[in-house]
Amino acid sequence: MKKQQQLLITTIILLTTSLSSYSQENDSTIIRKFFNEALSKGKSYEWLRELTIKIGPRLSGSEGAEKAVTWGKNLLESGGYDRVFLQDVIVPHWVRGKKEEGYILNRKLKISLPLVALGSSINTPKEGLTAEVVEVKTFQELRDLGKERCQGKIVFFNRPMDPTKINTFEAYGQAGDQRRSGANEASKMGAIGVIIRSLSNTENDFPHTGSMQYATGVPLIPAAALSTNAATLLSKTLKENPSLKFYFRQSCESLPDVLSHNVVAEIKGSEKPEEIIVVGGHLDSWDLAQGAHDDGTGISQSLEVFRMFKALNIKPIHTIRVVLFMNEENGNRGGIKYADLAKANNEKHIFAMESDNGGFTPRGFGIQGGSAEILSKIQGFRNLLSPYGLNEIERGSGGVDIGPLAPQGTILIGFKPDPQRYFEYHHSSNDRFETVNQRELEMGAASMAAMIYLIDKNF
Amino acid sequence: MKKQQQLLITTIILLTTSLSSYSQENDSTIIRKFFNEALSKGKSYEWLRELTIKIGPRLSGSEGAEKAVTWGKNLLESGGYDRVFLQDVIVPHWVRGKKEEGYILNRKLKISLPLVALGSSINTPKEGLTAEVVEVKTFQELRDLGKERCQGKIVFFNRPMDPTKINTFEAYGQAGDQRRSGANEASKMGAIGVIIRSLSNTENDFPHTGSMQYATGVPLIPAAALSTNAATLLSKTLKENPSLKFYFRQSCESLPDVLSHNVVAEIKGSEKPEEIIVVGGHLDSWDLAQGAHDDGTGISQSLEVFRMFKALNIKPIHTIRVVLFMNEENGNRGGIKYADLAKANNEKHIFAMESDNGGFTPRGFGIQGGSAEILSKIQGFRNLLSPYGLNEIERGSGGVDIGPLAPQGTILIGFKPDPQRYFEYHHSSNDRFETVNQRELEMGAASMAAMIYLIDKNF
Repeated sequence: MKKQQQLLITTIILLTTSLSSYSQENDSTIIRKFFNEALSKGKSYEWLRELTIKIGPRLSGSEGAEKAVTWGKNLLESGGYDRVFLQDVIVPHWVRGKKEEGYILNRKLKISLPLVALGSSINTPKEGLTAEVVEVKTFQELRDLGKERCQGKIVFFNRPMDPTKINTFEAYGQAGDQRRSGANEASKMGAIGVIIRSLSNTENDFPHTGSMQYATGVPLIPAAALSTNAATLLSKTLKENPSLKFYFRQSCESLPDVLSHNVVAEIKGSEKPEEIIVVGGHLDSWDLAQGAHDDGTGISQSLEVFRMFKALNIKPIHTIRVVLFMNEENGNRGGIKYADLAKANNEKHIFAMESDNGGFTPRGFGIQGGSAEILSKIQGFRNLLSPYGLNEIERGSGGVDIGPLAPQGTILIGFKPDPQRYFEYHHSSNDRFETVNQRELEMGAASMAAMIYLIDKNF
Repeated sequence: MKKQQQLLITTIILLTTSLSSYSQENDSTIIRKFFNEALSKGKSYEWLRELTIKIGPRLSGSEGAEKAVTWGKNLLESGGYDRVFLQDVIVPHWVRGKKEEGYILNRKLKISLPLVALGSSINTPKEGLTAEVVEVKTFQELRDLGKERCQGKIVFFNRPMDPTKINTFEAYGQAGDQRRSGANEASKMGAIGVIIRSLSNTENDFPHTGSMQYATGVPLIPAAALSTNAATLLSKTLKENPSLKFYFRQSCESLPDVLSHNVVAEIKGSEKPEEIIVVGGHLDSWDLAQGAHDDGTGISQSLEVFRMFKALNIKPIHTIRVVLFMNEENGNRGGIKYADLAKANNEKHIFAMESDNGGFTPRGFGIQGGSAEILSKIQGFRNLLSPYGLNEIERGSGGVDIGPLAPQGTILIGFKPDPQRYFEYHHSSNDRFETVNQRELEMGAASMAAMIYLIDKNF
């Protein structure tokens, strides 16, 4: 190579490097600003306190859910954004009724166990339901037992979440069929009720609820969850006396559907206003506690992302929307409705981000959809994000609420906080405001804002 | 390049790659075993429960500290290790005495504030101490005020930990002078007492204690910490009425030194028994709570590392020692004694690892000492460790207990869990067993075992 050629190449390399490090420095300054703002002047913690303590439980159809809609709308209207509006969503209205009761009848002993009805389950007879118990770990094991062994009994699904999975959501996924479809499988075998081991990966005394669905053409039987400790005790007692009986009573019911809403706000894009980036979480929560990690944190973080764009005077290129989805827990009607309207209105959603894995210390993002090139471009942000502990940018799921946007070509981004603690709280009476750490929550909001900023700027 | 040459090089590359991936696969299998063992058959959580709940607070010189020594010794003796022994350590014996009292006297109002004596502080007069307050943020600000403004007053250091630091230990380091030397600086200016804002990065109502040292040649004045909320309130009230008075009373005292112990156990190395790798934490804790994150978690994790080597039948090349150090909190006499004995006995300590940053989800390791080559070799383990969230392997501090080994050329490794929550608990009545998450604790123990295994194998 000639000297002149070499010099030219060197110059080009130097120029490119310096340009790119200029742009990176600019980006890193802005990302730093998001973290400074969230950690020193953040609102997410106070908003979470309002949503979880002032409003509290907010299952779809409940008074709490409607209060949350009003709260979100008022809060966004006072934020001075370009547009705030509601979307009508017809939601299921399941109510738990009187506190459930459950116990082992072992010869002359009666041992009370903490138990809750699964969401969408039917009630037991008023006087409760008493039967012998068949314990299994899998659907296959149940089928292998045959109808004769299950007829008239209560099927007890007792497969724990695998504690050795580092990603606890993987363990949750592998155990989730028991809760979602256990009643149907048991009913097919002639069972009259089903109880499951709570989907939690530690041993504790509070049962975890969650949704189940009845299949068509199968008799409906009541379904409930025992705390993990209670499940262990029942299993142990069954080994000593396989013909013990179990009693449970629940008075839950499904009332007629009601009208509720998604809450949406918008900052108009300066250059590509017709292309939309969504950030959101879900307003509804299970009824047993305050819905702090699921998903008060996602809501307050999404609101904080929006507030920070305005407070730091960062004008996005694309239109950015915050969406407070309704009914993620037992139907996803809000997510489906949002996507339906997006399609009907010919809106172009390029990205959607969701925070629905708890308010824990940030780890990274899961990317769902988009080409390998797009993934690699997003992974290229890692050097800007790793100073904040955001090392994990991989293929992963976006989130339930934003899921229905996928068929429209929207790339989904799931915010991924550390997953170790989530299933201590998830869907249980333990999901309280006090279990959220302020700094972790704020770091999450800043992480989401940083990613939205980089996506907006680079796509 | 000739075809033959190319072929040869390709062959070499392929061979090297396959050899190295064989060895990596083996390593990754063993690391996976540590995590499986810790997460499904781990003992660390039960051991932590014993140390924090059965034994409880264990400041050097206290009955709790002596119980902890016996507990650690018995536990290790029942583990079937090659050697278990105690090292004599003469420790300070400071006692808090009666619960402290503090309040603002603002005209006719008396406002009680939560306050605790700092470790090593002297008492106030029996009837307490009342004086006007001078609020400053830094030592320089204090000096600039001059003696006249401080004479006979209580100096109030109110510089918060910087909430925008992602690494909270950095913020702690920057604010720590107020606690450690505030009394001396205030005394030099003629003050009769000192109160500091607790070293915590959230707003809460429980004061955080910690050690301070009196300088020679300066009159000793009593020193205490206010909760962060109390400090904020005092500061606000001072703005309204600069001549308000503050009252506090504490009856702490330093009793004569007493004999205590480090607890040490050993697994003899199979090939290089004369070279030692240490893993440890500190047995002592502050007296206000159970010393869960500081440092019950470090102790139970170190014990678990040891148990797992034995349970998984992994025979180390070097000798591995677990050390339960005494007196990290107010003197580091155990750490100093350990290093002194190592030198006197001509022992060669190649590495020492400490866990003393809380029992939170693992993030990585800080490496102190050793050449750039050694650092880079350790960083080369990252691909084996990152599946477990261990992405951060950087220069950093090892730990207080193992610090005195540094002059002997020992390379220090600090286990680094996520730092966001630590200063919620640190040195306060809030440092309780219930605040430790079992999975996080177990993940930490497995992370430490994995690093010890890799160090042992590769150095």
